[in-house]
This record gives sequence, C-alpha cells and structure tokens, in this order.
Amino acid sequence: MIKAAIIGGTGYTGIELIRLLSGHPGVELRAVSSRSLDGTRVSDLFPSLRGICDLPFQEPDAIDYADLDVVFFATPHGVAQKMMAETLGRGVRVIDLSADFRLRDVPLWEKTYKTSHAATQLVAEAVYGLPEINRDQIKDARLIACPGCYPTAVALGLLPLIEGGLVDLASLVASCVSGVSGAGRQAKMEYLITECSESFKAYGAAGHRHQPEIEQILRDRLPAGAAGLRLLFVPHLAPMIRGMHATLFADLQQSGVDLQALYEQRYADEPFVDVMPAGSHPETRTVRGANSCRLAVYERDGRALVLSVIDNLTKGASGQAVQNLNIMFGLEETAGLGWPALLP
Amino acid sequence: MIKAAIIGGTGYTGIELIRLLSGHPGVELRAVSSRSLDGTRVSDLFPSLRGICDLPFQEPDAIDYADLDVVFFATPHGVAQKMMAETLGRGVRVIDLSADFRLRDVPLWEKTYKTSHAATQLVAEAVYGLPEINRDQIKDARLIACPGCYPTAVALGLLPLIEGGLVDLASLVASCVSGVSGAGRQAKMEYLITECSESFKAYGAAGHRHQPEIEQILRDRLPAGAAGLRLLFVPHLAPMIRGMHATLFADLQQSGVDLQALYEQRYADEPFVDVMPAGSHPETRTVRGANSCRLAVYERDGRALVLSVIDNLTKGASGQAVQNLNIMFGLEETAGLGWPALLP
Amino acid sequence: MIKAAIIGGTGYTGIELIRLLSGHPGVELRAVSSRSLDGTRVSDLFPSLRGICDLPFQEPDAIDYADLDVVFFATPHGVAQKMMAETLGRGVRVIDLSADFRLRDVPLWEKTYKTSHAATQLVAEAVYGLPEINRDQIKDARLIACPGCYPTAVALGLLPLIEGGLVDLASLVASCVSGVSGAGRQAKMEYLITECSESFKAYGAAGHRHQPEIEQILRDRLPAGAAGLRLLFVPHLAPMIRGMHATLFADLQQSGVDLQALYEQRYADEPFVDVMPAGSHPETRTVRGANSCRLAVYERDGRALVLSVIDNLTKGASGQAVQNLNIMFGLEETAGLGWPALLP
Amino acid sequence: MIKAAIIGGTGYTGIELIRLLSGHPGVELRAVSSRSLDGTRVSDLFPSLRGICDLPFQEPDAIDYADLDVVFFATPHGVAQKMMAETLGRGVRVIDLSADFRLRDVPLWEKTYKTSHAATQLVAEAVYGLPEINRDQIKDARLIACPGCYPTAVALGLLPLIEGGLVDLASLVASCVSGVSGAGRQAKMEYLITECSESFKAYGAAGHRHQPEIEQILRDRLPAGAAGLRLLFVPHLAPMIRGMHATLFADLQQSGVDLQALYEQRYADEPFVDVMPAGSHPETRTVRGANSCRLAVYERDGRALVLSVIDNLTKGASGQAVQNLNIMFGLEETAGLGWPALLP
Repeated sequence: MIKAAIIGGTGYTGIELIRLLSGHPGVELRAVSSRSLDGTRVSDLFPSLRGICDLPFQEPDAIDYADLDVVFFATPHGVAQKMMAETLGRGVRVIDLSADFRLRDVPLWEKTYKTSHAATQLVAEAVYGLPEINRDQIKDARLIACPGCYPTAVALGLLPLIEGGLVDLASLVASCVSGVSGAGRQAKMEYLITECSESFKAYGAAGHRHQPEIEQILRDRLPAGAAGLRLLFVPHLAPMIRGMHATLFADLQQSGVDLQALYEQRYADEPFVDVMPAGSHPETRTVRGANSCRLAVYERDGRALVLSVIDNLTKGASGQAVQNLNIMFGLEETAGLGWPALLP
Repeated sequence: MIKAAIIGGTGYTGIELIRLLSGHPGVELRAVSSRSLDGTRVSDLFPSLRGICDLPFQEPDAIDYADLDVVFFATPHGVAQKMMAETLGRGVRVIDLSADFRLRDVPLWEKTYKTSHAATQLVAEAVYGLPEINRDQIKDARLIACPGCYPTAVALGLLPLIEGGLVDLASLVASCVSGVSGAGRQAKMEYLITECSESFKAYGAAGHRHQPEIEQILRDRLPAGAAGLRLLFVPHLAPMIRGMHATLFADLQQSGVDLQALYEQRYADEPFVDVMPAGSHPETRTVRGANSCRLAVYERDGRALVLSVIDNLTKGASGQAVQNLNIMFGLEETAGLGWPALLP
Repeated sequence: MIKAAIIGGTGYTGIELIRLLSGHPGVELRAVSSRSLDGTRVSDLFPSLRGICDLPFQEPDAIDYADLDVVFFATPHGVAQKMMAETLGRGVRVIDLSADFRLRDVPLWEKTYKTSHAATQLVAEAVYGLPEINRDQIKDARLIACPGCYPTAVALGLLPLIEGGLVDLASLVASCVSGVSGAGRQAKMEYLITECSESFKAYGAAGHRHQPEIEQILRDRLPAGAAGLRLLFVPHLAPMIRGMHATLFADLQQSGVDLQALYEQRYADEPFVDVMPAGSHPETRTVRGANSCRLAVYERDGRALVLSVIDNLTKGASGQAVQNLNIMFGLEETAGLGWPALLP
Repeated sequence: MIKAAIIGGTGYTGIELIRLLSGHPGVELRAVSSRSLDGTRVSDLFPSLRGICDLPFQEPDAIDYADLDVVFFATPHGVAQKMMAETLGRGVRVIDLSADFRLRDVPLWEKTYKTSHAATQLVAEAVYGLPEINRDQIKDARLIACPGCYPTAVALGLLPLIEGGLVDLASLVASCVSGVSGAGRQAKMEYLITECSESFKAYGAAGHRHQPEIEQILRDRLPAGAAGLRLLFVPHLAPMIRGMHATLFADLQQSGVDLQALYEQRYADEPFVDVMPAGSHPETRTVRGANSCRLAVYERDGRALVLSVIDNLTKGASGQAVQNLNIMFGLEETAGLGWPALLP
C-alpha cells in the first residue's frame, strides 16, 4: 500500500482527495494536516466522512514522514513553496495541487501571483502533471505540479489542433465557465448563495492567473517553428457547485480535416478523455465527481469549435492528482478512479 | 459473481442502481430493459455511464433469465405486479423498488394506488426490505419489496421511540422534504427548473401514498397491545435534485429517558444508520449518493424531535436495494456501498 | 411626500427597502447610512440600483434629521437600541426592522439575545408592527418594532385558530423553512453556495430566537382565560435565496368547524393575506418580492394543518415595514406595494 | 389608457407581460387568450397574480377587438403569422414577441424555422423592434417584430464596434448563456430541475435559429461598403431561471480607440442600456426582472471583449415589448418599466 498524507485538508481539493483515496485499493491515507483545526477530526468538519475518515487534523510538523511514500499539498499558493525543500528532503515524493510549481518561468510566476517565489531552485525539477502530455516524465518525478482546472479543460480541448498545426495561433479564444467550488472554501461575500445563485457573470476579464499556465502548455506542444500564440481567455462563474465548461474557438488554416477523427485518434488511448460522438453537447453533470474530460468538436464556417467539460475538483484537481500518483507508483492508472459521475 | 438485470432502467432509480452496481465487487449487471428505448445503449441516454455501462436497453422478454440470479424492478407502480409471477417462475429472486408489494393489505393498496392489484397471491410472500427491522427475513426472501423513500427516512427516525413505547402514538407528526428526483424522471411542467427552483411548497397535504406504508412499519413495531397510531405526514418539495429530510415530532410519555443513548444503542450495529452527536443538524448533502441515514434527536419541552436525512435515490431506493441484495446473497452487507457522499 | 432615511443600508433588508421605496409614490428616500461604506454610492454596492438610487452611504450622524419624517433601522440587533432615544428625540418616527423592540419582556429579550438591553425605557412604547393585529396602534405609533420573518409567517397561519379558541394549545408545532437571505448578508462559510446549495437541514433545533416572539403574539391573541401555550418551532434552511414556508400543526378541540370559511373571514379585509382555495399548496415563488402571505388550511384526522408562505425579505421584513409606514402616515395601505411577485 | 390584449398568455413571455402591464400607468390589459385554458382565470394558473390579474383566459376569437388599441402575440413561432392579417384588419396595432416577422428574408426565415411562412405579404411592413436602432420607425409602425433575447444581448454589445467600423468583421465570436426560461414553458425532460440544475452545457453548437437574426441586425448597421460578416454564435444553458449573458470577441482593426468612451457615447441617451464603469463584470442578477442591458467593454491584446447582460424575459422579450408600446403610443418610454431588478 502506498502511504500518503495531505497537507491542507480543509479545503475542497482536500476533501475531494480524501473522498477519492478512501476508495482507492492501493493507497492508505495516514495523515491530514491543518494548522487551524489541529485536533479536530476530519469527519467533524465534513460529516459526509463519518466512519470513512476519522483521522484528526494535525500540525504539518507532527506528521510522521518516515512512514510516508507521498505527500499531497492542497494548500493555497505560496504555502507549498515554503515547505517543499524540507518535505522532499524527508524522502517522500510530492504532488502539489497548488499553483506553486506550475510555471517554469519564475519571474512570470512572481508577476502572476504577485509575490516572490520561495523555492526557485526546485522549479526546474517539477514535472507538470498533465498525463496526456507528460506521462513519461511523471513516472519518475519527485515533484509533480498538478495542473489548474482551467488549464486542464482548455488544453485538452485545444491540444489536437495545436499539435497538428491546424489553426491560426493568433485566433484562439477560450470562453470558460466554472462552478463556485473553483473559488475554494473561503467565506467571501461574493460566493454566498444569496449573491451568486440565479446569476451568471464573467470575472477576471482583464486577465486571469491561469492564462500563463494555459499558454505554457500550448507553447510546449506547438510544432517546431510555430509562434505567435495569442489566446483570449475569459472565465465565468455559473450558479452551481461543481463543473467546468470550456468553449474554444480557433480559425482553421486548412479545410478538409476530419476534426472528429483527429480528436478520436489523439485520445484513443487516454483513459480519462472521452471524445463524444459528432454533434454532442457535453454536460458538466456527466463528469460530476468523475475524473473525466468529455470533448465535442465542430467545424463551423472555417473555424473549429470545441466543447470541453471536467469536474473542476476531480479531473481539474484531486482526481488528476490521484491519476498522477497512480502513474508515479506504477499502479493501474485508473485505480480508485473508476466510479461513475453522480447523475442526477 | 451474482448476475443481475434491471427491468426499467431509464428512470432515476434505474440509473442509480447501474451506478452502484458498476462499482460492486460481487455483482455483474447483465441486462437493462426498456420497452421504449430498445436498442439504445444505456450510455447514450446517460453519458455519465460511457465506458461504464454500454449495454443496450432491451425488451424485458429478450432478457436471458436463465443466466440471472436476481432481477431488480425499477418501474412505476403497477408494472412489476403484472410480470412478477412469470419472473419468479424463471427461478430468479426479485428486488422490487416499486410500491407494488409494499403493503400487505391489498384493499388498502388498491385504494392508495387507485388500481386493482394484479398479483395478490404474491403479496403475502413479499418481504419488506428494510434491513433495520427485517434483516433475517430478507436473507431467504424470494421477493423483496424495497421501501419507499419517505417510509425509510421516517421509520428510521421514529423506530427507537415506537419500539420503546415512549411516545403518545396519537401525537406523531412527520414534516418531510424531498429533492425533486423523488418525483422520478418524467417530463411534467411542475418539475421544470423554471417552476420549482427558488421555491418551496408542500404537496399531497390532503394525504400522500406513502402514509399507509409508514403506518404499516410503525404498527409492526409497536409494543404488544399498543394502539391508536395517528400520524400526520406532510411532504414538501425543495429546490434540489437529491436529498430527503424528515422532521419528526412526538409527545413523550415519560421524562428522564436519555434519547441520545436510546438512539445510539438501537443503531449501534447498523452499518447504514448514523446517530450523530447531540446537538447536530444532519444535512442532506452529507448523504448525497451514499447509502446512509443520519439522525439527530432532541428533547424539547416534553416532546421528542428527530431529524433524519437520507438520499432519496440511495438509502431511499437503489442503495437500499443493493443492501438487500447483499443480505439475500450472503455478501458483506456493505459491499459496493462504501463510497462516501459527494460533498461539496 | 414622506421623507425617509435608512440606517444600515448595506444588508438585504436595506436593499429591499430601497427597492420598494424607489417605486413608492408617496415616499422620498433622502439618506442611507453605513459606517463602513461611507462615501460609496448605494448603486456601486448594488448595481441593480444604478440610476435608481445613487445616494452615497453616509455616517448616521451626517444625516440631516430635521429634513426627515421617518427613519428605518435595518441594522443587526443591538444597534437600534443604542441610537433610539437620540433618534426619536430628533422628532422623527421610527420603524425598526431589527429585533430590538419586539419583546415586551426585557429580561426575556436579554436572555434571548444574550446581551443587555440598551433602551429599556422605550420598550413599552414600541408597537409591534403586525398590521393584521395592531393596525390601530400602528397609526399613532412613534416607534414600530417590525416583526421577524418566522413570527409573521407562523402567526398569520395560526391566528384564526388561536383567536377562535379552536385548538389544544399544548399541541402546536411549527416546522418552518427559510431561504438563505434570512441569514442576512454576511460572509459566513455555511452560507456559501458550495455549502448550502443542493442540501437541506434544520438549524436552531434546540431553540431559536424567534420562538419567544411567536409566543408573545399568540399569547396576546388567546381568548380570555386560555393558557398553557406549548409550541415546538423548528426552522430549516432551504437552498434558495428568498422565501419562507411554515407548516403548522395543531390538534382541534372540536370537530365540524369550517376552517376554510374561518380563515377566509378572518382575513377578508386584509390586503396582504391571501387565503387560497381549499386544497391549495402555496408556493414561496408566488410571493417572491411581494408583500403577501398566502395561506392554505386543511383538516386531517382531528388536526388542523396550515401552510403559510411569505417572502422573508418583503412581508417578512421590508415590505411589512413599508406597510407600517403607509398606516402610520395615513397613506393607502397598499401604496408602493402593488407589484406582483417575480415569477418565474 | 391604451387598451391591450395578449394572444397566448400561458407562457413565460405572457406572464411577464401581464406582470409588467399590471404596474403600467398608461395601459389597461383587457383580455388574455389561451385556446387550451379557455375559462380558467390567469391567476389560477399563476397564483402570483391573484388579485392582480383575475381575467379569464379566452379563445382568441372571443376577444372584443373593437375595444383594443394594441395586441401582443406571445405565441410560439408560426402562430402569429396565421392570425396577423385578420388581426391588423381589425384596426389594432400589433407587437409580436415571436420570431414570425423578425427576418426580412422570407426564404431564410423558412429555412431557419423549417416551415413555410404564412403571411409573406406583411413581412416588409414589420418593424424590427429594437429601439436602440429603430426608434423612429417604431413610432409609426403597425406591426412590430419584437427582437429575440440573444439578438438583443449580442447586438447591443456589438453595435458600437460595428457601427464604428472598428473591427475585423470575420473575427466575431459570441459565446452566450441563457437561463432556462429562455426555452419557454414546456414540459420537456431536458429542462427538469433534475436534468439541468447543477450542470452547464452548450446547445445548438451546429447552428441556432437566432444566428440569422443577429446577422441581419449587424449587417444593417455596417458602414457603407463593409462586408464579410462572419459570426460564430454559440448558446449555452446555465442552471438558473432568468438571465442572459453574452461574451463577445472581435479583433480590433485599429489601436488607440477609447472603447469605454465609445460605448458611453453610443448609449448616452438610451434609458435601458447601462455602460458600466471600466473593469466591471455585469451580473445577470442586476437586471433580474428589469428592462435593462448592462455592458462592460475591455481591450485585450488587440481584441475587443464585451460583456452584455439582460433578463431574457424582460429586455429580451416582454419588457422590450412594453418599451415598443410606449414608443408607438407616445408614452414616456420608461413608463411602467422603472422598477429595479429583484436582488437578492
């Protein structure tokens, strides 16, 4: 059994990790940390876990790392950085769900997150944990930077077009929608049910932190010599708990390409990417709680239109983290991730 | 492996059964029937099941019963009755999720469901599948009448008081709330999101079909000689998909009883009934998709107040059906039912 | 034109008052106070009011009271008390939407709200602003204590039974449900959409602050000599923004009373209480944003069952405040309150 | 008083019209038709209107047209066409909320709506009722084709850019979102709360009926000689009742244009278009039930990004119809439309 701990278990990616690991046949969760709730049981905070995870939250320093194989960080950005050198030094492998090691360009990270980076020496070592592009590097990685939710949904939707050199790189538009759990578990007025239910809005329209991360993925996958990437990414908030939808637009540079076949081939061997039949409209509820990305692709008037859905907490965060763990430790990649979406 | 089929797989209890069975280590789902969707794949109707259940719907008569151990009926009331003698005659055991065999009093059933009963000769044989009262009979049953959602939530909440002879039987009040999936998957105007979201209402205030079923359970558990049961049951519709909440009131006939201890003892060995700590307020989301009933009990001014939550589709229907299957076939009672609620 | 100001205009009862007064033909809103947002425009906080109320929030002390006829307090409990003597001394009449002057029993108020009362000398003067029982006193009142939402919904539902001496006073049960706006506009974790959407729960099951207020109303309306009131009131939270539903139970002491006629007669002259036809199930959405209470009454097996709905922010707070204003200043009681509910 | 009737009053645009007209100082609603509910009172179908509109539904032929000034059609497409010649012949003016007369190109209409047009001779006379472009023609029109919801939201968002010749016409993208009331009041499975709540999806991704209508508006407003319009319009369904959000993208053909000023000037005199301050994110709830369009505009990396919100039933349908009525009959354009959005 792989022995795991979670640093920062009181947020939504934390509880989602606990939920997924509770049903994982090859992983044992040994500890969950929280500074503020030290001593409280996980199941007192989340009664859905009564009888399933009754571990007490404990201080990170109180965890017995000698006993562990892997540590997940489910912390706000800035936290994992400060603890990373010490944590890796304890001989465990790390899957960081935060943004701390996602960007290879440290100045860009610092500009994006408006703070200085506390572990620049480890940035180069981190492997970006999107299995659909980095499966081989993930296997041997010591430090995984688990992708953001928008980057996952957008990248999986655009990769076949980008990798194939099929689109005008200056024409990319990503109009995306998230459920409110994407904002994390924090008591802010704007996320009250009374403030965001029965309403829809854009946010971050002047620029959002996930933009550089998306661009980094896409640039890495451009055919040799391609340049000029220009993406307009706009996120929106929908009145729902979970779910992420990306609507992606790109001008095609050639006609006559069978986009449906292109997508089906690109993801034929991917266990968690489902290219739906032509004409489909993926619904976020079909991936609720599931580690899946469902895609549909259309050609309209010289443009490609791609629809991509994930659960922001599962394939967009904790499910993807478990998928990384499975790859890192040589388990079946789908282990613990086979449960269907909860529908209705 | 126990081999199972589902008659009537296009409704919400049907898809919930498929979801639960897909993760069950001891059951293999061999067939799912639908007259109207014959030939369509289950996963075409419910894309959440793509890659998980790609069986085609087929006519009930096209199923190879010789191959089966158990058949679930997830049909509207009136359907299972007509097929039951023939189905049992094929040598399979049956778990009927509909109301067809829940009431032992046939005239009462006919009055309640406003139609004549089509298999009266089988009524006496049917075992009411509430494991918390009928576990032993379930083991050997050929025909299980799986309880309704309200009866499950109300009965589990009242049983300790009723069995203990602690309350004035004429004082019972059950004010209950259901998510809209309790109405089934049917295109009725009143269940449109535009008609029932952002609103709350009672329904069936003049009398609801589940009332006689609740009363039958309670009468069966009265101490010898007790009589005079008078229950006022009122269901309500809440703007949510899943979840059921029962708020139960009864006048105590004696003071000084430790209700918390009473409830904890009554359910100490029940894997799917969770008596929460004193002062708790069970939330339906803590059982979303889980086969649990969570209870809290209060004493207020000479009265007992009990709060009881289940997921109407899980412990209130398909999860309970799987629990019955486990008991019937000697599997671990919790097999395939260990997954936590989806929260948030 | 009646000139009005609102103390504490940043909460939900505040914005609801501004919305209602903006369409009132006989009232001019001159000032809205907020200590924390001094200088911000009302419409910057609530863009729904752009072009409708562009007043700046100002410090309460900066308001020109000489110019005013009436002041509304839409503040948390404890605030109006401290300012009340001074405010009344300025020659204005006051409608207090908070709980500060609702209970005539000062020790009970202090026990209920867990703080000492800061204006005990004014308690006796305050008129409880439920027009359906106190219309005459409201006309001449200097200080109105505007009723709470639960007390309004419960009292209007029970009054005909209580006043008629028709029920066993020890048998009263009020199982009530509120939308989340009843909790006010405060950034608490439990009211996040991610925490309370798609879920239902009771709260305050051990006792809620509105209980003594409900009891005070009912006791005031008991027939001479009646005693022994025992009410079990349990509030619940439903996943919606607005709306309140009370389900009320009482044992009838005599049979043969035509409850439908009783209710219709009791409220025949009330502009804001609508007794629905027999067999109705009032929906909260039918009063969304409207100053109405809709009622339905049933007799079941010797008991009365009453269903009562209001919008917690309108008839349950700000609409009722405007209704009081209309009565106090001799305007048409329905002035500014004629707009239908927003449905769908 | 202008005397009005509504043909087809049982849908959501019908009830919204009744709601708005009930508070209109210059209009009296004399009749509401429904073939299927002939004899039922409007307020029996919609209890929110009890005491506000207790007219009986009646057969269209039973209406006394001699008594009327104006008739609204709130019918599905195809109905108004068949009745239009006769209705106009009765000497009333008509505001048609359906799609029947929105497209001047009859073959395009027939292709789009997949049926032959039943009143082609009247198409040329119809005035497209978007006051922001056609106010003068509306004044004298006999037949108004009231715009669709998506065309209203998209056109108001793009007009300043289009009229100014500022953007590459081949680069237009409209990623739009609607609440479910946009689908009308029809009992379809996909609009059940259990099917569309807590989920988000695109629909009509291969092409939607509102596309030609949007294109017609934009082409009408192109500077002389401009051509080559290419718009990719994708609608989505959000889990809410009301509200429409358009996110609009266009490549700018020149730099240095002050888009904020452009928008503010374009709409300076428009009572129902609100250009929000730079950096704003309009929320649909700020226009819930209000006849407003709120806009925000951004420049990002050589592109214009516009956010536009309306209530699909108000500015997107019935509110706009009343605005047209006001213009047609020389009333104050804002008459009956001054009420703020219902927030929260």
